[in-house]
Amino acid sequence: MEKVPGPVLESLAKGQDKYVERLNEFLKMPSISTLPAHSGDIRKAAKWLLHEAELLGFKGALYETKGHPVMYAELCPHKDAPTILIYGHYDVQPPDPVDQWCYPPFTPTVHDGCIFARGATDDKGQLLTFFNAIESILAAEGRLPLNVKLVMEGEEEVGSPNFGAFVESHKELLKADIIALSDGEKYRKDMPSICYGLRGLLYMQIDIQGPAYDVHSGLHGGSVMNPALALTWILSKLKDSNGKVLIPGFYDSARDVEPWERKEMAGLPFDEKTEAAMLGVPGLVPEKGYTVLESTRARPTLDINGIWGGFQGEGSKTIIPAAAGAKVSMRLVPDQDPDEIARLFEKYVMSMVPAGVTVKVTKIVGNRALIVSRESPAVKAMASSIEYAFGVKPVFTRDGGSIGAVIAMQSGLGIDDILMLGWGDPDDALHSPNEHFSLENFRRGSLAAAALLYGLAKAKKPLAPAHMAKKEAVK
Amino acid sequence: MEKVPGPVLESLAKGQDKYVERLNEFLKMPSISTLPAHSGDIRKAAKWLLHEAELLGFKGALYETKGHPVMYAELCPHKDAPTILIYGHYDVQPPDPVDQWCYPPFTPTVHDGCIFARGATDDKGQLLTFFNAIESILAAEGRLPLNVKLVMEGEEEVGSPNFGAFVESHKELLKADIIALSDGEKYRKDMPSICYGLRGLLYMQIDIQGPAYDVHSGLHGGSVMNPALALTWILSKLKDSNGKVLIPGFYDSARDVEPWERKEMAGLPFDEKTEAAMLGVPGLVPEKGYTVLESTRARPTLDINGIWGGFQGEGSKTIIPAAAGAKVSMRLVPDQDPDEIARLFEKYVMSMVPAGVTVKVTKIVGNRALIVSRESPAVKAMASSIEYAFGVKPVFTRDGGSIGAVIAMQSGLGIDDILMLGWGDPDDALHSPNEHFSLENFRRGSLAAAALLYGLAKAKKPLAPAHMAKKEAVK
Repeated sequence: MEKVPGPVLESLAKGQDKYVERLNEFLKMPSISTLPAHSGDIRKAAKWLLHEAELLGFKGALYETKGHPVMYAELCPHKDAPTILIYGHYDVQPPDPVDQWCYPPFTPTVHDGCIFARGATDDKGQLLTFFNAIESILAAEGRLPLNVKLVMEGEEEVGSPNFGAFVESHKELLKADIIALSDGEKYRKDMPSICYGLRGLLYMQIDIQGPAYDVHSGLHGGSVMNPALALTWILSKLKDSNGKVLIPGFYDSARDVEPWERKEMAGLPFDEKTEAAMLGVPGLVPEKGYTVLESTRARPTLDINGIWGGFQGEGSKTIIPAAAGAKVSMRLVPDQDPDEIARLFEKYVMSMVPAGVTVKVTKIVGNRALIVSRESPAVKAMASSIEYAFGVKPVFTRDGGSIGAVIAMQSGLGIDDILMLGWGDPDDALHSPNEHFSLENFRRGSLAAAALLYGLAKAKKPLAPAHMAKKEAVK
Repeated sequence: MEKVPGPVLESLAKGQDKYVERLNEFLKMPSISTLPAHSGDIRKAAKWLLHEAELLGFKGALYETKGHPVMYAELCPHKDAPTILIYGHYDVQPPDPVDQWCYPPFTPTVHDGCIFARGATDDKGQLLTFFNAIESILAAEGRLPLNVKLVMEGEEEVGSPNFGAFVESHKELLKADIIALSDGEKYRKDMPSICYGLRGLLYMQIDIQGPAYDVHSGLHGGSVMNPALALTWILSKLKDSNGKVLIPGFYDSARDVEPWERKEMAGLPFDEKTEAAMLGVPGLVPEKGYTVLESTRARPTLDINGIWGGFQGEGSKTIIPAAAGAKVSMRLVPDQDPDEIARLFEKYVMSMVPAGVTVKVTKIVGNRALIVSRESPAVKAMASSIEYAFGVKPVFTRDGGSIGAVIAMQSGLGIDDILMLGWGDPDDALHSPNEHFSLENFRRGSLAAAALLYGLAKAKKPLAPAHMAKKEAVK
């Protein structure tokens, strides 16, 4: 399997120390998007990334948004080669609780073959594998085998609130044949995977207003509708103990898991007891009629993400709270329309409002689910590149989460070939203390990325402007 | 109606300026019991109060508790006269929000016949009316007409957590025939009242534990029981939309409102629309089959005082919370046993726990309800003293709240004659910005207190040690 030219392989091997040093430099920047105090660090990280791309010969700029800037850079030497758009994010989660880290979160430390730092696996270490691949190819061959566009945002960890608008207003700039990103993890440490599906997300907020201020539960208890109680009456009827969502019409357009997928999922190694122990729960409670893997990756569901109202301190405070509220989100599957589900949700909630309170329902985020064809030349090239770099064929999985940026690019750019990769391991502790990334995965990921660029170039699929135009026309 | 000897009346009238000055001095002390930073001020206020009692010829001391000290002082010159135990509290609520005060909360300011300061009506101004009465009597007559014991705590605003233990360990010291306190308000500005009933309080906490940490709702939504959802399933079944508590057995021992009481309550002026507008609610929702006054003052009920779990910030965070919880309290009526209701509550809650989470139920506070006879000589003396001082017969009311200290004294000392008074007006803004107390109520309250002392002395009911012993024996 001659995937990558020999000189590139040599260059990759020789460059590893330098690549680790570049990652080290990147990880020192506390580019925490959720904390306003770090907006300077965020900008510094974006500039640094642009500079690194420019050092490779890319041309680009920082694009301002309502939030943090998007770094875009391109190196497109070919007229009739395919173009790959590589997505990543340079922002990271906050490091809290800092006292649980073995090493300071922004002092990258290599231990036992892994580099420990916030952002190591999510997503700085993974996005740099593409830089490594590009640098090695350019160093060895002087030229990329296809056109490469890099788009890296600074708000993925806060839900990419401005990325969709950026995509919408830069469709020409971002035009490409294939999107690739590595911002996830293998199915298992020894089982690299390609993700071909994401669940959608509909995130709602319910606010219930009772009295104008907290009132004394002795003086008014028995005559004032308690907004927290009213809230529980509503929330308790959103999902039943079989895991079925009770919103009328919720499942009407949901595409069910197909028999071949159920069979395939059943073949993936999965141990409920281990999973329950890892999560610290007495047991798992999948949707009735479905396995845990099906329930979490290919079935829609509903969760209360937060609930509040009244007194939350130690001891007692005898009040009827003025207000109560909750964040409720739904994971959607293909063919469910977030706007339509939001309407059904609001209608259902409003039908349950008791006398004595007022209720407001707000939509916070809505993203469709995504399914990518597993048969495209791009996916095949990807699968073979992974096998080449990791020594084992990848498994195909659907992911239960939602990546807003991917949905934005798919719908905004009309690109259906999306390669959702993950060089990380499931125990990389992303979003948690002691986040780390294996340097072996860093190396193999870079190799897989290089192989992918050659693989895609072979497919020689050019840009398809007609296809793009059609997509834009039907918008 | 010659209730109070002429010289005492003169003395009261002459002393008013001095009494206002004493109140002024008391109100300058920020004796805020909820804030540890003010424990020095609390002690200063206790010492000051003891000193004021000593100036009147009382003997007493500060009694240490696990929290703030209890001030106790007595002047008991009679062998065969009744003894009155006067309760009050020298602690006050925090003044927040301070920026909403027209005058600084600890710089007492007289405006339009009212003194504005935190604690003016709750309870410093009201407790000092007894000091005023005593001082006037002693100045004019040289001797009290009966024995007086003063007991003033510094933790009423935090629920009197240590007062019960103090009472239990000082039964001999506190032995008395009658308990009196003025720590409330008239039924209406022009309708002074005597409170003959309090609801009890049972305050519980429910804690639900799901996964060991917040988990990603994309990765695990559909397989992990959501503790916030489980919480709503439980809480929603505690009370229905008719205002009926659904805990099996909850009403079994509850004494219902008697027909004569319902008739009497129906005769009290009460306007639902005004009340709803004042509270800022679309309407009141009394228990089905009962009026608002009955529902809030003489019927048991249940409220969620606080609820929490997961993400409560702006925007979205896609988690299944590790835990969720709620404070739930019940107002009880006579014959309901808080311990028994706590057991029923826990049993019912535990019967509803779904698979996948664990639940803990904790009792925080439990107090019985109280009903005082309206026919005792003490109550009659009180009614006639109020009519004398305020020019109008008092109405009798039951209060929907619970006063832990009163229940502690009633059960600990076996005293059934309890005079629960309130010289304040309903719009005195206790616990709120711009708390104030009318100087006219301060004057009339002092007069009523003096009349009461003479009225009780006439009843000439001596201490009843046999009665005491019996109560203690049955404990």
